[in-house]
Amino acid sequence: MAEENMMRIQATWVEGMQFVAFGEASGATAPIDTAHADGSPRRGVSPMEMLLMGVAGCTGMDVIAVLTKKRQRVTHFYLNVQGYRNEEHPKSYNKIEVEYVVRGYDIDPKAVERAIWLSQTKYCSVINSLKAEVASSYRVEQEAQEPAE
Amino acid sequence: MAEENMMRIQATWVEGMQFVAFGEASGATAPIDTAHADGSPRRGVSPMEMLLMGVAGCTGMDVIAVLTKKRQRVTHFYLNVQGYRNEEHPKSYNKIEVEYVVRGYDIDPKAVERAIWLSQTKYCSVINSLKAEVASSYRVEQEAQEPAE
Repeated sequence: MAEENMMRIQATWVEGMQFVAFGEASGATAPIDTAHADGSPRRGVSPMEMLLMGVAGCTGMDVIAVLTKKRQRVTHFYLNVQGYRNEEHPKSYNKIEVEYVVRGYDIDPKAVERAIWLSQTKYCSVINSLKAEVASSYRVEQEAQEPAE
Repeated sequence: MAEENMMRIQATWVEGMQFVAFGEASGATAPIDTAHADGSPRRGVSPMEMLLMGVAGCTGMDVIAVLTKKRQRVTHFYLNVQGYRNEEHPKSYNKIEVEYVVRGYDIDPKAVERAIWLSQTKYCSVINSLKAEVASSYRVEQEAQEPAE
């Protein structure tokens, strides 16, 4: 997706481990927080979850763009992303799994496969910014045919 | 920060390039979107911004935790994070700059420096999950002294 070559965000501390981040290009904000020792409610996304959300958003946009170009009639689309971390500090991801679930009318599995391949190898800036090995799988769910007119 | 070894998120396509992501551990959501060719408003954070937000949240939490432990009286704290991308696909980050701005009473610059060093080399899972080289700088702003009682 078209983006500038330099990107900038600002994150401001609220209290405890809670921050609010603001993206300069998007104008959008996101709350950030972590688990609390006393079990009190979290008030934001964890930083390590944000990496996985970035993966999902990036490859998700690539895939839906390719499927639209290939005239696939997608009705629902979601991604499950799991990240496995090292046990020792720094507990970085060493493996990430992405599952793509595409639902629609007459979806061609080959088109889905091709879209995922293009994203993971060529276009997805987020996946290619990460050290972790990324594995993928997909599921196609066909909608019942539309009633004839 | 204490987190599970496996993390999971789900992102659901809304329309166009817009997704909503949900973090299983945090229970928090974040909107994802990109720039639109027709200039219509964005409705979420860009995936590449999310990586920088993850960096800010992760190292920000480390630094505020260390400064609190060192009994520094921080009143304000924010981070500016910039990422520089390759010109060619995949346009991944090759360099990230983090600026830490700490404001408070009698802040010890050595404590800030040490906290940043500990985070970047030892604790920050997000920074250590990225391929990019990460540079850092900091600014300390001293509050005027509290009036004597």
